[in-house]
Amino acid sequence: VQYLPQSIQKLIAELAKLPSIGNRSAERLAYYLINNPSLSLELAKSMHLAGEQVQHCKTCYFFSEQPQCPICSSEQRDSSLICIVEKPADLIAIEQAGIFKGKYHVLHGLWSPLKGQGTEEMKLDQLIKRAKAENTEEVIIATGATVEGEATALYIGQFLGEHQIKASRLAQGLPKGGDLEYLDDVTLSNALSGRTKI
Amino acid sequence: VQYLPQSIQKLIAELAKLPSIGNRSAERLAYYLINNPSLSLELAKSMHLAGEQVQHCKTCYFFSEQPQCPICSSEQRDSSLICIVEKPADLIAIEQAGIFKGKYHVLHGLWSPLKGQGTEEMKLDQLIKRAKAENTEEVIIATGATVEGEATALYIGQFLGEHQIKASRLAQGLPKGGDLEYLDDVTLSNALSGRTKI
Repeated sequence: VQYLPQSIQKLIAELAKLPSIGNRSAERLAYYLINNPSLSLELAKSMHLAGEQVQHCKTCYFFSEQPQCPICSSEQRDSSLICIVEKPADLIAIEQAGIFKGKYHVLHGLWSPLKGQGTEEMKLDQLIKRAKAENTEEVIIATGATVEGEATALYIGQFLGEHQIKASRLAQGLPKGGDLEYLDDVTLSNALSGRTKI
Repeated sequence: VQYLPQSIQKLIAELAKLPSIGNRSAERLAYYLINNPSLSLELAKSMHLAGEQVQHCKTCYFFSEQPQCPICSSEQRDSSLICIVEKPADLIAIEQAGIFKGKYHVLHGLWSPLKGQGTEEMKLDQLIKRAKAENTEEVIIATGATVEGEATALYIGQFLGEHQIKASRLAQGLPKGGDLEYLDDVTLSNALSGRTKI
């Protein structure tokens, strides 16, 4: 495509590296950005600013502009419960539901030996140290119900067990509004084996 | 969401202004950018560079890094045909099909009085002047088959007629692979009324 300016081609190539942005979307975004210089400028500034100011909280590894994030430094949060999540978006989902008043530990990735994701990055040693220091009573492993999420949960559960820390994981069963007719076998089987007394 | 750093919230808000990027996508993109500082930097640079270097070609108003775009300055392109398109992406689609060797005129928007889009922005006076200067024989109006596309085509056709310039527009009919059973009434009706001899 020799008729398209080099600088646009470069922009399209960079945009296409973003998750769930295909080539066509990248083209559309590039044209839009070029026709909207003020938005383009603001966006570049925001990206720069966020890159400069956002770090990982030294305690829980969530995004934070201070060394310690507001959740970790809050006196209102219950240190006796730590919830392990895969990524910042999961923490935000739980916070938005407003159902948890403990603290967090963000893994920034699941255990996935095939993808070269080891257990180092999960900072489990730091978690152990912190749990002992804060007298944590229970660690809730809130990874997703995917293959990697389950493998990670099993691994972490075992690891915490070796360090005499009580671990639990999220219940598996019917999602709200779930119609038995349309649910998959695994979900049904999990709902059955995890049945609770009425 | 007071626990999410300000700079991330700002970045999400800016990203959500992009076309076909909803709030959830903007969040995902923001987290990805923050976790990939090198991509974020490259992207900001590309946006800046494209913003600096890309202008509209003074002849056809397509994107260009020079005052005149490669298509307008090419000796291989046929000046006797000018194809009018709504936006740069449409020009690129025609170029990629490799079916047209004439030149272009990019409108950067359709005629849409309700949206406050007048006829000024279409630079039709410049088009007339250019068509006369280059002895253009025919102007092909290649706007889409939408309500606004049709209205614009009618308006431009009339305008060109008043200036004694021959205008034509794209055929309407069955798309390739079109199965009559599933086509809408308007397409069928256009295909019928525009039928050609075998």
